[in-house]
Amino acid sequence: MADPRFFTVAGPFTLAALTELSGAKLSTAGDAARLFRDVSPLETAGADNVSFLDNKKYVAAFQASKAGLCVVAPEMADKAPDGMILLLAADPYRAYARIAQAFYPIASPEAWVAPTAWVDPSAKIGDGCRIEPGAVIWANAEIGARCRIGANAVIGDGVVIGDDSVIGATATVSHALLGRKVTIYPGARIGQDGFGFAMGPEGHLKVPQLGRVIIGNGVEIGANATIDRGAGPDTVIGDGCMIDNLVQIGHNVQLGRGCVIVAQVGISGSTRMGDFVAAGGQAGITGHLKIGSGARIAAQSGVMRDIGPGETVGGAPAVPMADWLRQSAILGKMARKKS
Amino acid sequence: MADPRFFTVAGPFTLAALTELSGAKLSTAGDAARLFRDVSPLETAGADNVSFLDNKKYVAAFQASKAGLCVVAPEMADKAPDGMILLLAADPYRAYARIAQAFYPIASPEAWVAPTAWVDPSAKIGDGCRIEPGAVIWANAEIGARCRIGANAVIGDGVVIGDDSVIGATATVSHALLGRKVTIYPGARIGQDGFGFAMGPEGHLKVPQLGRVIIGNGVEIGANATIDRGAGPDTVIGDGCMIDNLVQIGHNVQLGRGCVIVAQVGISGSTRMGDFVAAGGQAGITGHLKIGSGARIAAQSGVMRDIGPGETVGGAPAVPMADWLRQSAILGKMARKKS
Amino acid sequence: MADPRFFTVAGPFTLAALTELSGAKLSTAGDAARLFRDVSPLETAGADNVSFLDNKKYVAAFQASKAGLCVVAPEMADKAPDGMILLLAADPYRAYARIAQAFYPIASPEAWVAPTAWVDPSAKIGDGCRIEPGAVIWANAEIGARCRIGANAVIGDGVVIGDDSVIGATATVSHALLGRKVTIYPGARIGQDGFGFAMGPEGHLKVPQLGRVIIGNGVEIGANATIDRGAGPDTVIGDGCMIDNLVQIGHNVQLGRGCVIVAQVGISGSTRMGDFVAAGGQAGITGHLKIGSGARIAAQSGVMRDIGPGETVGGAPAVPMADWLRQSAILGKMARKKS
Repeated sequence: MADPRFFTVAGPFTLAALTELSGAKLSTAGDAARLFRDVSPLETAGADNVSFLDNKKYVAAFQASKAGLCVVAPEMADKAPDGMILLLAADPYRAYARIAQAFYPIASPEAWVAPTAWVDPSAKIGDGCRIEPGAVIWANAEIGARCRIGANAVIGDGVVIGDDSVIGATATVSHALLGRKVTIYPGARIGQDGFGFAMGPEGHLKVPQLGRVIIGNGVEIGANATIDRGAGPDTVIGDGCMIDNLVQIGHNVQLGRGCVIVAQVGISGSTRMGDFVAAGGQAGITGHLKIGSGARIAAQSGVMRDIGPGETVGGAPAVPMADWLRQSAILGKMARKKS
Repeated sequence: MADPRFFTVAGPFTLAALTELSGAKLSTAGDAARLFRDVSPLETAGADNVSFLDNKKYVAAFQASKAGLCVVAPEMADKAPDGMILLLAADPYRAYARIAQAFYPIASPEAWVAPTAWVDPSAKIGDGCRIEPGAVIWANAEIGARCRIGANAVIGDGVVIGDDSVIGATATVSHALLGRKVTIYPGARIGQDGFGFAMGPEGHLKVPQLGRVIIGNGVEIGANATIDRGAGPDTVIGDGCMIDNLVQIGHNVQLGRGCVIVAQVGISGSTRMGDFVAAGGQAGITGHLKIGSGARIAAQSGVMRDIGPGETVGGAPAVPMADWLRQSAILGKMARKKS
Repeated sequence: MADPRFFTVAGPFTLAALTELSGAKLSTAGDAARLFRDVSPLETAGADNVSFLDNKKYVAAFQASKAGLCVVAPEMADKAPDGMILLLAADPYRAYARIAQAFYPIASPEAWVAPTAWVDPSAKIGDGCRIEPGAVIWANAEIGARCRIGANAVIGDGVVIGDDSVIGATATVSHALLGRKVTIYPGARIGQDGFGFAMGPEGHLKVPQLGRVIIGNGVEIGANATIDRGAGPDTVIGDGCMIDNLVQIGHNVQLGRGCVIVAQVGISGSTRMGDFVAAGGQAGITGHLKIGSGARIAAQSGVMRDIGPGETVGGAPAVPMADWLRQSAILGKMARKKS
């Protein structure tokens, strides 16, 4: 059970309701009215809990689980312990997500402007917003309805934030236009100057950074991530992108829809990605490249050339995944032979 | 001498007192009552200063030093300049640490709640706490005795913090239970949602993150580091772990006691480490792995497989250290031959 | 045109004025009194806009551009579209920087101390400073003239900041002396304890960190970057260094003048760099090394040995650039042969 200090569970829900909202298929005719009260990991779930199996590393935990109901892929069904009801789904994690969202819905904030928040009189604050203590909202900013501006966050002059967005505590946003349902995690930095200057032995000369950051609907930006504004063109993060903690995105970078950028990735200036590109943790991507839609970049890769749509690359310098695996195998074999 | 703008020195201490508290062995019968007034690096130390030699790169500085007293390993004793008194210790850095702590003790804070702090009436604040300006403490949080909550830090609903802990300026802590003597450096992010969602072309679906962050006694978390809360299980940082700046720790990760995680390391979700694991700077560790106690991971390694207790690995993909050194040597030789 | 929500353009400027301030050479006798009203990227520039071409990847955009005036290298002049006036410069980006700075000058802040700032009575605040809401300035700090201390930033006891400096929102600075015209971006962490402790199975023993951070004139420190103070010696960042987002600089590190450190680089403790060293994104540099002036370190390199002045290195472990390119080529060939 989730710790009630931190979480409030909704429900209970009947087996029929959970089946319907999950989009999964019930493995056997069960008691449609049976009640489930919470979600829980396989190891700790009880008879009135819903759990899931997604990663085959955890089959043993599945086989030993006391969960009353479990979301699994059809091919795992015959490994289930006796008495466990199964919800079968091609993507069990997605079906489970819907169930967990039902038990733990995200509430709209209670409207409030904390007395220690600093809101410029020219800023427009939508209905139902919660502006927490110490938050600062500068002149001409426009905050949509039902937004939450976290404690000690700072929203710059003229920034626009769409409805139902959340700006985490101590995050800073400037020179930016954000869509609806955007979540900026604590400490993320959006819209500061890019790293643009003309180098020279008599001193580096700063180039004014005159673009913006444009963030689409439903985007998440992780804790302490940094997204610089454009130098002239804009920096653009497409709808539905998920960006993890401590990611760096340089000026003029453009991401299409639904890109997934794992923690500590760095994307250098002016690189453009298509839709649904995935970059593993700590990958680095040089500037001025084109990465095609659906490309996949392995963790820690160093991408120095354009990547075509749907390609998978690894290594540094990054090469097609199969080549990188062969390189690693060859090197490993040579080192063992030598020893 | 440490700059008195920033540091206040205690003491002076006699040679006898320093010998005793250091746990080291005096090299010669010295004047037990001789007074020492400060610690100092080898290059700047004077006759009433205590210095140390730990890294052999600095033997020349040791030989030229005017320090009156120096902590060294026994095998370095014969390189000491004339007139320098030596404290001999198998681990000179540790003995020096005790001496430096005596000269620069950490004071308990003066009890204070700044008038511009925002403390929810339901929060419990222990005796002797210092709550600095702009700090925000939400409902039902429990802060132990003699804690320091830094300026503009934000402590979430229900968070528990043990006695004698320090939360740095602008750090944020939510969904977390912290032990005693924990130090969270400025800008660290503890307890936000993990990077958990079901990917899909129709949009990524967020999975509620229902676990906590559990932090043991004496842990340090570096500046701008990020530790996500568990997805269902907890994220756990064992007693005495030292975590450096800009480290990323994913949801459900568990570290045992005394792990040392150097700056910019990333540990992906659900990986478990034993006790006293050391990971060098910028190493990346894939999710769902087991890393045995005492394992050592070289800087910038990419760990993609389980590591046994006491193993040392390097490279990406990480292999046993000896193999990695051979790989590097072979590659180097081939490149030189070709040229 | 830069978005007027966020930027205010100066000017207009005559062709004669722009030619003079840019230091570039006019390609043809033009109408010296012709007015230009803004800078703009090649793709969006109109007849009264100034643009530039620096990276040959964008020659097609140059050839199709409608910019009235463009700064280019002399060898590109014959590719210009008809009717475009050219300013020829060996370093077009630098000449453009001067023009863009004229259109978008940096204004001194309006003097103000926000009522929700917390300024210790013993702190000295120079003339013309702007102290934003929620900023905290502790005892005996000394802030020069015309500084901007951003919202919710925290300046520690005794910190000295030179004239015309900017401390970004929510940044924290302690145990530090900053020069003139220093810019600290939002969320940067300057002056906290270094990662210094004596490891041991009975627990790691913290070593007091007794040095400072000394930052020269004109330095920029990126968003969420972390610079630890010295352990005994100081951490030193020389005049004119440009440090990007999420960079980690360990205790006792010394950078000379004009170093350029790209995002997510990590520099371990006690390493010393000369002047004008450049380190590419995500490079890692081991502790206690010497890096000569003018050295260049490729992105993602792992530097484990001293580097001589002017050397260029790449790879992990880093080797001379030519060797690294050969290593990559050899590996690539072997992997392809095998397949």
